[in-house]
Amino acid sequence: MSRVPSGLWQNLIALQVYGANTNVGKTVFSTLLGAHFVRRAGKRKWSLHYIKPVSTGSIEDADDLYVKRHVDGASVTTLFQFKEPVSPHIAVRGADFVPSDDHLVKRVYAKIREDAAKFSWESHMGLTIVETAGGVLSPGPSGVPQADIFRPMRLPVILVGDHRLGGIASTISAAESLTLRGYDISAVICFDDKGKYENSDYLLKYFGKMDIPAFTLPWIPELEGYTQEQERAAMRNYYEQQSLAAEMHKLADSIVQRHEDRLTTMNKLPSRTRKSIWHPFTQHKTVKNTDDILVWDSAYGDYFQAKYTPTSLKDRSLALAAEKPLLYPAFDGSASWWTQGLGHGNPQLALAAAYAAGRYGHVMFAGATHEPAVKLAETLLKGMDNPRLAKCFYTDDGSTAAEVGIKMAIRATCKRYGWDGSKDNIEILGLKGSYHGDTIGAMDASEPNVYNEKVDWYRGRGYWFDFPTVKMRGGEWMVEPPKGMARELGGPEFFSHLDDVFNFDARGEGQGRRWWVYEKYIRDRLDILVKRQGRKFGALVMEPILLGAGGMLFVDPLFQRKLVEVVRSYQFTEHEVTPPSDPLHWAGVPVLFDEVFTGLNRLGHFTPSTLLEVHPDISIHAKLLTGGLLPLSVTLASKAIFNAFLSSSKSDALLHGHSYTAHPIGCHVANTSLKEMEVLNKGYAWKSFRRKWDWESGHRGGQVAPRWWTMKGGLDASEDGGVKTWSMWGKPLVVWLSYHDAVDHVVAIGSVLAIALKDEKGSGYTSNAAAGLRDALLNDRSHTAVSIHSRVLGNVIYIMASLTTAPKDLEAVGDALKQKLDRVSGVTRSPRTNPKNANDITWMGEQK
Amino acid sequence: MSRVPSGLWQNLIALQVYGANTNVGKTVFSTLLGAHFVRRAGKRKWSLHYIKPVSTGSIEDADDLYVKRHVDGASVTTLFQFKEPVSPHIAVRGADFVPSDDHLVKRVYAKIREDAAKFSWESHMGLTIVETAGGVLSPGPSGVPQADIFRPMRLPVILVGDHRLGGIASTISAAESLTLRGYDISAVICFDDKGKYENSDYLLKYFGKMDIPAFTLPWIPELEGYTQEQERAAMRNYYEQQSLAAEMHKLADSIVQRHEDRLTTMNKLPSRTRKSIWHPFTQHKTVKNTDDILVWDSAYGDYFQAKYTPTSLKDRSLALAAEKPLLYPAFDGSASWWTQGLGHGNPQLALAAAYAAGRYGHVMFAGATHEPAVKLAETLLKGMDNPRLAKCFYTDDGSTAAEVGIKMAIRATCKRYGWDGSKDNIEILGLKGSYHGDTIGAMDASEPNVYNEKVDWYRGRGYWFDFPTVKMRGGEWMVEPPKGMARELGGPEFFSHLDDVFNFDARGEGQGRRWWVYEKYIRDRLDILVKRQGRKFGALVMEPILLGAGGMLFVDPLFQRKLVEVVRSYQFTEHEVTPPSDPLHWAGVPVLFDEVFTGLNRLGHFTPSTLLEVHPDISIHAKLLTGGLLPLSVTLASKAIFNAFLSSSKSDALLHGHSYTAHPIGCHVANTSLKEMEVLNKGYAWKSFRRKWDWESGHRGGQVAPRWWTMKGGLDASEDGGVKTWSMWGKPLVVWLSYHDAVDHVVAIGSVLAIALKDEKGSGYTSNAAAGLRDALLNDRSHTAVSIHSRVLGNVIYIMASLTTAPKDLEAVGDALKQKLDRVSGVTRSPRTNPKNANDITWMGEQK
Repeated sequence: MSRVPSGLWQNLIALQVYGANTNVGKTVFSTLLGAHFVRRAGKRKWSLHYIKPVSTGSIEDADDLYVKRHVDGASVTTLFQFKEPVSPHIAVRGADFVPSDDHLVKRVYAKIREDAAKFSWESHMGLTIVETAGGVLSPGPSGVPQADIFRPMRLPVILVGDHRLGGIASTISAAESLTLRGYDISAVICFDDKGKYENSDYLLKYFGKMDIPAFTLPWIPELEGYTQEQERAAMRNYYEQQSLAAEMHKLADSIVQRHEDRLTTMNKLPSRTRKSIWHPFTQHKTVKNTDDILVWDSAYGDYFQAKYTPTSLKDRSLALAAEKPLLYPAFDGSASWWTQGLGHGNPQLALAAAYAAGRYGHVMFAGATHEPAVKLAETLLKGMDNPRLAKCFYTDDGSTAAEVGIKMAIRATCKRYGWDGSKDNIEILGLKGSYHGDTIGAMDASEPNVYNEKVDWYRGRGYWFDFPTVKMRGGEWMVEPPKGMARELGGPEFFSHLDDVFNFDARGEGQGRRWWVYEKYIRDRLDILVKRQGRKFGALVMEPILLGAGGMLFVDPLFQRKLVEVVRSYQFTEHEVTPPSDPLHWAGVPVLFDEVFTGLNRLGHFTPSTLLEVHPDISIHAKLLTGGLLPLSVTLASKAIFNAFLSSSKSDALLHGHSYTAHPIGCHVANTSLKEMEVLNKGYAWKSFRRKWDWESGHRGGQVAPRWWTMKGGLDASEDGGVKTWSMWGKPLVVWLSYHDAVDHVVAIGSVLAIALKDEKGSGYTSNAAAGLRDALLNDRSHTAVSIHSRVLGNVIYIMASLTTAPKDLEAVGDALKQKLDRVSGVTRSPRTNPKNANDITWMGEQK
Repeated sequence: MSRVPSGLWQNLIALQVYGANTNVGKTVFSTLLGAHFVRRAGKRKWSLHYIKPVSTGSIEDADDLYVKRHVDGASVTTLFQFKEPVSPHIAVRGADFVPSDDHLVKRVYAKIREDAAKFSWESHMGLTIVETAGGVLSPGPSGVPQADIFRPMRLPVILVGDHRLGGIASTISAAESLTLRGYDISAVICFDDKGKYENSDYLLKYFGKMDIPAFTLPWIPELEGYTQEQERAAMRNYYEQQSLAAEMHKLADSIVQRHEDRLTTMNKLPSRTRKSIWHPFTQHKTVKNTDDILVWDSAYGDYFQAKYTPTSLKDRSLALAAEKPLLYPAFDGSASWWTQGLGHGNPQLALAAAYAAGRYGHVMFAGATHEPAVKLAETLLKGMDNPRLAKCFYTDDGSTAAEVGIKMAIRATCKRYGWDGSKDNIEILGLKGSYHGDTIGAMDASEPNVYNEKVDWYRGRGYWFDFPTVKMRGGEWMVEPPKGMARELGGPEFFSHLDDVFNFDARGEGQGRRWWVYEKYIRDRLDILVKRQGRKFGALVMEPILLGAGGMLFVDPLFQRKLVEVVRSYQFTEHEVTPPSDPLHWAGVPVLFDEVFTGLNRLGHFTPSTLLEVHPDISIHAKLLTGGLLPLSVTLASKAIFNAFLSSSKSDALLHGHSYTAHPIGCHVANTSLKEMEVLNKGYAWKSFRRKWDWESGHRGGQVAPRWWTMKGGLDASEDGGVKTWSMWGKPLVVWLSYHDAVDHVVAIGSVLAIALKDEKGSGYTSNAAAGLRDALLNDRSHTAVSIHSRVLGNVIYIMASLTTAPKDLEAVGDALKQKLDRVSGVTRSPRTNPKNANDITWMGEQK
């Protein structure tokens, strides 16, 4: 996906002209519009630049020459010309150079930017018309439909309607294709066919209802049988007369008005937001002024298009000088709160959403069923590869899924042990720093922390274990024990490869000292809680591997395994209870995995249970479930849990169900997303990440992957190195960061990269150590650097890619991270001098 | 919207052939496909019926004759023929009869049904091809795009691609238009242009990626310059040779396979559902077999398309005899858990969802903003017309919105009164029978009831007042006091018009006896709770007007007004607290209105606060917010509530925020829905409902509205009778039901109709009194009656229309309700003999 800004400037209107079909008069329209603007009376002078990104056919007939001929003073540009008068994807065959989509968009953008730089004053404005070839979805040189290629710029569109028989249908369909790709249609125009098919009458009404202005323009002169000279004269006459006709004035006024409205909307959005919005997780007193509120005009792939807010006088003068567009792309470094998987504005997901909306809308799910919900349940149950899980319960978000999971687990426990939850205080077991959502039930399953300390109805109901953590420091992976275990274990364990942390046999599972220290640690505490204090526990609730909101804490997987093992063998009640004979039945208390953040490939696997090699009795999923498009969540449960709710009384059922339970849009989008993730899982890109990570991590002798590694063809797609753990961010970056003087430690797995910064005042949510880096990453809006939007958790800054982020984008983000870290921390003896990392740095493109 | 079944039969494949444009060879393709099937070898014999719903141009050139000529034994039908060779919407001008969309669909359906009746055996199957005119969205006779007109049948589509220059774009766009209307594209076919534009190469790959099979068919012979005889011979030759070509076999096999797959999917869906799905609010032990699970194949307008499950031997033989389609339309009588507003499968909402998905996907909202979220916040705040409300907080569903509202209110109270919520048990005040959602915090705000009695973490935190209820019994509206008030009030108050219940002045507000009885009742209880028991209350939380989940309890609005008044003037703490000087500031405790069910026009007004004439400090909204498409909710709050969270410490902020907070799809769909609802609010249909209700309720002398009332033109659209309350269901039906021997009372307001049935065993959620009626309403699948899917709440059955349900559908549902109520209850002396209702019955179309 191209990292270009969306095309919006103060004193330049850039439009994209699309045709509802080929031969509908796009170039005649462009000429007419251009001629109108340059001849337009009023306080503003206008200059026209006509850009044809790709032209096919002979040069003499080229559209740009035509426009130049008929519009006085017009600049014209054709970026790529191919000789064959066929679709660009065919015309490029045998060409010396075929522009990639990225190259094409960037070239067009650069041209418009040049234009923009010329118009610093409102009294002289620019109009740039980018005219596409063929219809809206006609393939560009790469074969990708044009509307997809040019989407990153998201220029306002003028759609030239089809005046022929069948043209009503093709015009509306073309408009729908543009709409579902997130384009704004500035106007639809139709050439008046003088009453033959009356398309324009129909289309004016149709688009009027959609608030899209539509205009009828006078019929193009019939030129059949004319000589070239007669033709030119006729057209000259036409442009002269019609370009200043009343309808053209209305159209042009409307275009200018829409442009100004867009600017006004964008400028007023911060103050409107401040007035009416109560933001999530925000102390509004610290939102000092409207500039603190980021405005997203749109988003595409990994990038937001953010409103440019000059922060300095120099910025301001640059903006005035029109060197800067009013929008800039910012890398979505929090993956929009960990939700993004397949890129913003993904047309495939948009179409999937539209299909389900068109086929069902929302339909009642209680007592009923529909295919998308069942298919999704099956896909999830199969993907989990966990023989315990058998049933899928739908809710709306991670928090509601957690509530359901907790209700399920505790009810099952109470039923088996004969406890009365309405009288007994049933608690859960968990890990310190865990977080399961914002509703009271989900909050109650987390230990007291900054998120819930001011929530009046919060009552922490549980006991939360401290645990050893995995981190990289000074280039080495280590497992660091918590205070209560440090003496017994005598310091951290070290590993060269993250996979070794997950090599449970090698780490002495079932026999080694560490294994027994963990066991004792857990059992001792349980004995105190259960036997001495008489507390009742109904579930073990935990995030496998990575505790997100707690600060990206990487739990030692061996400890989590041990915890599950002990909990499943522990006797939680004095009364004898027949142990379940079915090995798929829960024992001790049910084990609930909160995989909302860590699941569905966030950590490189469908489920983090694969890394832990543990089968929970309940698991919950959300966020990535819909690929990052809209809310949907599930709670998966074992048959044994399900059976605990069976009875002849309705009141024994799980009486839970939100209005939009299993809404078909969410389910169908999730099915589409999971299918796409499966393709990614088997595809080249991830295999390449895995192999590179493996190579660099020492299984191939600790060498850094050679530069050709990143090039397609450098790797047999059938091999993936067989690594269990891998990071999209690459080992060299992770190592570099871990050596940095300002960094305490680093964590990287899957698409997650988290950097814990040193903070003398202590770590935790209230630390400000990372805020400076966050601001520096966002605020570099130079054309060379990438701007990164990130979120911090106290002293921890994390950057999360989507599942489709390309190596070159990861590299650019990594470079920015390194530069800004140096700058913000003021470190002079940078880790670059560390010889161990010399190769890494080369590979990461530092010396480019 | 047409109430026709979706077109699916066991032994008949009905296909709809759409063209990517006009003149792409639709009829040639239909002929080729028909010729293939009738000549196809194999164990099955096939018969072809070719239907052209609307044909324009001269009869001699008609497509049906062409097909008949080239396919041996084909039946052909043209339903409507217009002479002018132009688009149907133009060709109909001056015609004697112009079919409505409904008529057209029903005619087509009836024809296919006739076909289906012929094929009882798998060895002889039917193929019915319905060929449209022009492109996918070409207007039909009414001017509505064809793909919209034929959507209720949702036949599998074969899309004939465009082989010409520009055809790649128009074919994909046409497919997208079909997809967003919920069609399944069975195949895309392209005529081979012999390498000229290579469209078919491209399209095969493109659609292949979307799992839509695509096929290239041999080029149509060039016929230019041929005589008619030569032409026919050439084409005869073409069909003869090509209809049995390999590619045609592949295509036909694929069509048959898709048909069989669809049947298999539908048949297996219940057992697959039973295997993997844990249903909401369902005691699975009572789901005896898979037939108890309804399968929705799709939905459109007010109707589900449900899988037909023969329940008797007679049914089974009918199904075998192919008289019955495999799908039947069922009225969505619960409005899919009270969510539906603008109809299932609404293409406008589908496009809105797609646009936001294409422009943004989901984008981070913390610290940022986007236009759809701000616009929605502004629209809601403006629509509430409540000077207190100033801020909008986004969440995902009613339950999470309730949690946020409760957190807000209690925090504000604790702050003002200096209470420590972590130590003090802060409770809420509410009404008996209230329900606010399924998460623990929302549950805790409801009194102990069947929904939460088995939820182990539930701790009812509050006091819930009993209250007088509004109901109609024996044709009269009444307000019935609860037991604790009955003595003081001396029985119910009676009203002839529901509006009179809301005439607070006339009912003695501020002076009358009832007003003071209410006051004393509330104050006495508060004194006991606060002064004697020392309990601390943080909010008044209630559903205005109608308590949904509690059993559609209609609260006396005068009581709710009094409750708010008392609560706002009551001293909840012994310590002196300076009363707020700002009249917009909350007093006593904040008042929270849960408008999730009752808001956004469900009761005929944007907000039920308009009926109550009360301004809450907090209100919550969900369900209808997105018109019934997908989950989104908001909590609106006053400035004073917002200010309670301002401090220099982040931990004082409202640390709540789900991952998909303010997701742009939800916000943009909500904006589109609210705009459409505003159009409805001002439009003819609702004005007509209001006037009719007013007329029938006695303000015009108690007469029943004349029959012409329901016809357009019978009413000046600028008048709406000025009624405050109105029901879409019409007074005659409500009165009829209220007289019925099996009915205890009825409630009707806005789109809600609730019937409380007599149950000797007592009312409540566990009553089975209404189950029989519910089953009878669903299971009448005769062609004349309407099947109704409804939900019961114990002894209460309710039917809820969407906001766009047409009078004729409401009438049909009303008729069915009356018939089934008679049948199920076994009442012989039916209320029809009650002379008071004679007119009503006439009006309701009983004697048709």
